[in-house]
Amino acid sequence: MLNIAVIGAGRIGHVHARTIAGHPEARLALVCDPIGDAAEKLASTHGARAAKDAEEAFADPQVDAVIVGSPTPLHIPHLIAAAKAGKAVLCEKPIALDMADVEAAQADLDAITTPVMFGFNRRFDPSFAAVRAAVQAGRIGALEQLTIISRDPAAPPIEYVKVSGGIFRDMTIHDFDTARFFLGDIVELHAVGQNLDPAIKEAGDFDAAVVTLKAASGAVATIINNRHCASGYDQRLEASGRDGALFAENIRGTTVRLSNAEVTDAQEPYLDFFLERYADAYRLELSAFIEAVEAGTTPPTGITDAVEALRLAEAATTSARTGEVVRLVS
Amino acid sequence: MLNIAVIGAGRIGHVHARTIAGHPEARLALVCDPIGDAAEKLASTHGARAAKDAEEAFADPQVDAVIVGSPTPLHIPHLIAAAKAGKAVLCEKPIALDMADVEAAQADLDAITTPVMFGFNRRFDPSFAAVRAAVQAGRIGALEQLTIISRDPAAPPIEYVKVSGGIFRDMTIHDFDTARFFLGDIVELHAVGQNLDPAIKEAGDFDAAVVTLKAASGAVATIINNRHCASGYDQRLEASGRDGALFAENIRGTTVRLSNAEVTDAQEPYLDFFLERYADAYRLELSAFIEAVEAGTTPPTGITDAVEALRLAEAATTSARTGEVVRLVS
Amino acid sequence: MLNIAVIGAGRIGHVHARTIAGHPEARLALVCDPIGDAAEKLASTHGARAAKDAEEAFADPQVDAVIVGSPTPLHIPHLIAAAKAGKAVLCEKPIALDMADVEAAQADLDAITTPVMFGFNRRFDPSFAAVRAAVQAGRIGALEQLTIISRDPAAPPIEYVKVSGGIFRDMTIHDFDTARFFLGDIVELHAVGQNLDPAIKEAGDFDAAVVTLKAASGAVATIINNRHCASGYDQRLEASGRDGALFAENIRGTTVRLSNAEVTDAQEPYLDFFLERYADAYRLELSAFIEAVEAGTTPPTGITDAVEALRLAEAATTSARTGEVVRLVS
Amino acid sequence: MLNIAVIGAGRIGHVHARTIAGHPEARLALVCDPIGDAAEKLASTHGARAAKDAEEAFADPQVDAVIVGSPTPLHIPHLIAAAKAGKAVLCEKPIALDMADVEAAQADLDAITTPVMFGFNRRFDPSFAAVRAAVQAGRIGALEQLTIISRDPAAPPIEYVKVSGGIFRDMTIHDFDTARFFLGDIVELHAVGQNLDPAIKEAGDFDAAVVTLKAASGAVATIINNRHCASGYDQRLEASGRDGALFAENIRGTTVRLSNAEVTDAQEPYLDFFLERYADAYRLELSAFIEAVEAGTTPPTGITDAVEALRLAEAATTSARTGEVVRLVS
Repeated sequence: MLNIAVIGAGRIGHVHARTIAGHPEARLALVCDPIGDAAEKLASTHGARAAKDAEEAFADPQVDAVIVGSPTPLHIPHLIAAAKAGKAVLCEKPIALDMADVEAAQADLDAITTPVMFGFNRRFDPSFAAVRAAVQAGRIGALEQLTIISRDPAAPPIEYVKVSGGIFRDMTIHDFDTARFFLGDIVELHAVGQNLDPAIKEAGDFDAAVVTLKAASGAVATIINNRHCASGYDQRLEASGRDGALFAENIRGTTVRLSNAEVTDAQEPYLDFFLERYADAYRLELSAFIEAVEAGTTPPTGITDAVEALRLAEAATTSARTGEVVRLVS
Repeated sequence: MLNIAVIGAGRIGHVHARTIAGHPEARLALVCDPIGDAAEKLASTHGARAAKDAEEAFADPQVDAVIVGSPTPLHIPHLIAAAKAGKAVLCEKPIALDMADVEAAQADLDAITTPVMFGFNRRFDPSFAAVRAAVQAGRIGALEQLTIISRDPAAPPIEYVKVSGGIFRDMTIHDFDTARFFLGDIVELHAVGQNLDPAIKEAGDFDAAVVTLKAASGAVATIINNRHCASGYDQRLEASGRDGALFAENIRGTTVRLSNAEVTDAQEPYLDFFLERYADAYRLELSAFIEAVEAGTTPPTGITDAVEALRLAEAATTSARTGEVVRLVS
Repeated sequence: MLNIAVIGAGRIGHVHARTIAGHPEARLALVCDPIGDAAEKLASTHGARAAKDAEEAFADPQVDAVIVGSPTPLHIPHLIAAAKAGKAVLCEKPIALDMADVEAAQADLDAITTPVMFGFNRRFDPSFAAVRAAVQAGRIGALEQLTIISRDPAAPPIEYVKVSGGIFRDMTIHDFDTARFFLGDIVELHAVGQNLDPAIKEAGDFDAAVVTLKAASGAVATIINNRHCASGYDQRLEASGRDGALFAENIRGTTVRLSNAEVTDAQEPYLDFFLERYADAYRLELSAFIEAVEAGTTPPTGITDAVEALRLAEAATTSARTGEVVRLVS
Repeated sequence: MLNIAVIGAGRIGHVHARTIAGHPEARLALVCDPIGDAAEKLASTHGARAAKDAEEAFADPQVDAVIVGSPTPLHIPHLIAAAKAGKAVLCEKPIALDMADVEAAQADLDAITTPVMFGFNRRFDPSFAAVRAAVQAGRIGALEQLTIISRDPAAPPIEYVKVSGGIFRDMTIHDFDTARFFLGDIVELHAVGQNLDPAIKEAGDFDAAVVTLKAASGAVATIINNRHCASGYDQRLEASGRDGALFAENIRGTTVRLSNAEVTDAQEPYLDFFLERYADAYRLELSAFIEAVEAGTTPPTGITDAVEALRLAEAATTSARTGEVVRLVS
């Protein structure tokens, strides 16, 4: 049984608190959030304690592990403080908004010895994970082309967009990690940003993008992103290899199909909300974290994964803004 | 090159004439129909000769084969006359409206030595045929349960219904043959007739039915029929065996799928008209006939198949009317 | 919060105990089972008390509701005793092995005033429930034909088969309830039993069956059962109406599809075990029970549903054994 | 009835000859090919005349139209000669191997007044055409992202690769036209070439590629190409818009699905050969050509389309070789 503190009582904090509450091996010990009664409200739902200051989590000897769900600029400070206090850490993505912030903290990050995992939940989605496992098992021969379709149901509030670090750091970061999950090191990247929504353009961001990534292996990944999708949360991937291909399709709430005079075998819209869509993934992510902490093994998605995904997000931002290809020093 | 005469310039005569015209090994020599200028009109479309009297087809030494597409009561007389004239015959289903008519002509039918085939086009549908071939090849182990869904897009005109011999002889006859194609001899039959359309009830017929057939092998077939289907011509089957199952699905004009806020992966309605739906089947049926005639082999669907399908249609009529199970003497 | 006692620590008792444990509105208070340490083992997993004697559940004032998961011959005695003790009851299907047992207890059953619900879990499956709701909402017009495919992954142990009451009471009972859920009163029934597995035949039972049910409305339901299915737990239905059709398809663990040189878009086998396949249904069934008990409303599947399903199971047994159609007095 | 001469008795010449033979409004008058008895053999199959010299087609007053299926370097000369002779021309893609060749012939091309159409058969594929029509009709709102998957079953012979002009001119040219068909003018292009097959690398070409195209409208198209696909001829597209998405899926020979202990709903491989896969498209392309010629209207895919597709192919070649983005002067 792992006693866990959740830092940050925002949307992702709620996800983690609920996942912990439903997990047989985890106990929600503490929720920390400086704003209003956010921590109190979330903690009380699950019978946990609340605090304003994250330091309480780090200082509490009862707390075995910390989930960092604070705003992105606090990820590195919270991660380092928790690790220094000897806590295992599950940190949300992205690790930072800028590679410069990572580099500034490099010495502290390098000094971390407690287990650290990053919340790249896609890796734990049962379908994506099954495709990856089948690829690794050689089911489709050498992987040649990977296509990741990732569209949100609707854009976040414009205020969020402004502080998000941009679509590549905020949204594509998951797909960059998925690309690395399948293809390993990326050597070249090209991104086209699209401005379909004038409000997001005005906020200085893109709301859709297509990114092409060339891997050291010679394989190529394509990421197709959109902040909006009429049918819900469009999350698919295709891994195409020499001997075959594997597809992970969208998820619906039921298996119902409707046929009438206009349509046949029409299914319902995709699961709409990331909590529903990735409910299993969040649960399996937490299990993987707990398992690694308890077994003393290295968690599956470490600081390097977080840094490399951010490096790709930064390169994509540059590519989309300059219209030029970016080569990556591996 | 087989010179073929078509007897009957109705709907099915048109199908056969067109199929012959498009077939590299067949030539439409003659069309016979006693009504108005029907023969003339159909023949001229394809550069063939026309006659009022079917006797001209039988008497013509240039005619190698006859397709009997006349009204059902004329099937046996035309079949026998053509065979006596030494012609190969492809006869439409059903062989007759009553088993009594078959029995009355038994001696003449037994005396036939020219190649005779019956137009059970489903056997030549590429998907149904592929399922049958896979079953025969042992892909799903012993066949245990067969489900045939067969729904017409819309009921025929009520005047046709009145002379059709009833749903079991007119429509289900195809499915009875399909059941025999997969399961061989049937030993027991139960049919429920449904009266969903009052006009058809008034005409003394059912417009939907569910028939259960027990085969000598112990396998059971279920046929689900309806004279109406909102989505088009609903023609499917499932063959379920010890080691797996095979499905033949409906056919659409394109592979297009639509997703929006209400539906996802919605396909278009099924092909609507039997000519489109079974275009390939009619062509392959004609090829099988020509091949058998030219090779001197026995055509795949002979008089016995036609008689046995009719026997099942008659048993189903009895079962649906009496509400009782009918045992069949094999 | 409803305090629930589970009577019977067998397979279904485990399902209910686990479902209660995961339910925010329910608490597992007590597990009763007379055999060995079965109650003790199950109870301790979930921090509940255990007892050998079911009477303890009925006598305990802390217990609000009882789930009857004892062997079928005890269903009626336990149901009546619980109700007399003022407990709400969720009873497993079938209500009894024989209509005679129901009739013998009729007076006591009629006297029950506490909320009683029967565990027809299919009604709570999200896909089946969505199809039913769409039919009720008129999405496909008048319902004309219902097809229920229900195949178990593998036959139960032969010792279980011998005391199960036969395939119709043990397995088809769910499908009879589903037929009634969609079609209401059934007036006529025909069943064909199949003996594919010699061991089950020797035990005096069928291991596959096709049942045709005629509803008072004129609609017809077909149930296709098999104790064995190579691909897993095959649980589908099609509701076909005047204006369209609705389909509930099988469920897999992931959405992964594989294409290679032999197959394309191949999916994984169906969920295999009833616990997985109907996990959501058991949870929603419990929610419906709790909701009805707490709101004082009539639970959705009452004694009448249980009795009518058993009546159909008995009629099917008769039909399959005699080979005759059975008419039902409504 | 259009009398058509086919120039070139190679693979594509055979396709056109067969399509003409099966077309009710067309007659194959002449086949021209300088090599051996190629013209003779193809012509005799369809009862047409043969000639070594293409000039015979241009000179023949009986010939209404010419299909140019000669090697690519002869496309422009044959096109111009035929047009000068007053013939309507259906010319194969690409128009030339180099834009320089187009520019050198610009004056002659500009002077053409007879109907000229280019063989971009994808536009006539019923599914692609239906998606395009639905997009045009506003079914998915503003088109935002187009994804074209186009994989050949197997690479052509290495000798063909060497003279093909490279993957972008030979294979992607179709997809460039499809992108223009949906999106209109392209302003920016990025291509990644892949060398998966060493033999093709040695021949100086890529055997797989991912191309990103930015349209003037702000929409982005992604083309994913591979010379090899284990499952057959992989030809799909997704058009994603503000209000929904449309998908055109692969085509199989039957609708059969197989389920067993390892796979469920497994379909057969895709149609393998371009003649089968695009049989309908070739027929509809010819119909569109005949219709335009006979009606005196402008054929749907003219010289501009051919030139613009070539311009994109050239830009892609540059981009893939230099690793840089190419801007296009519209």
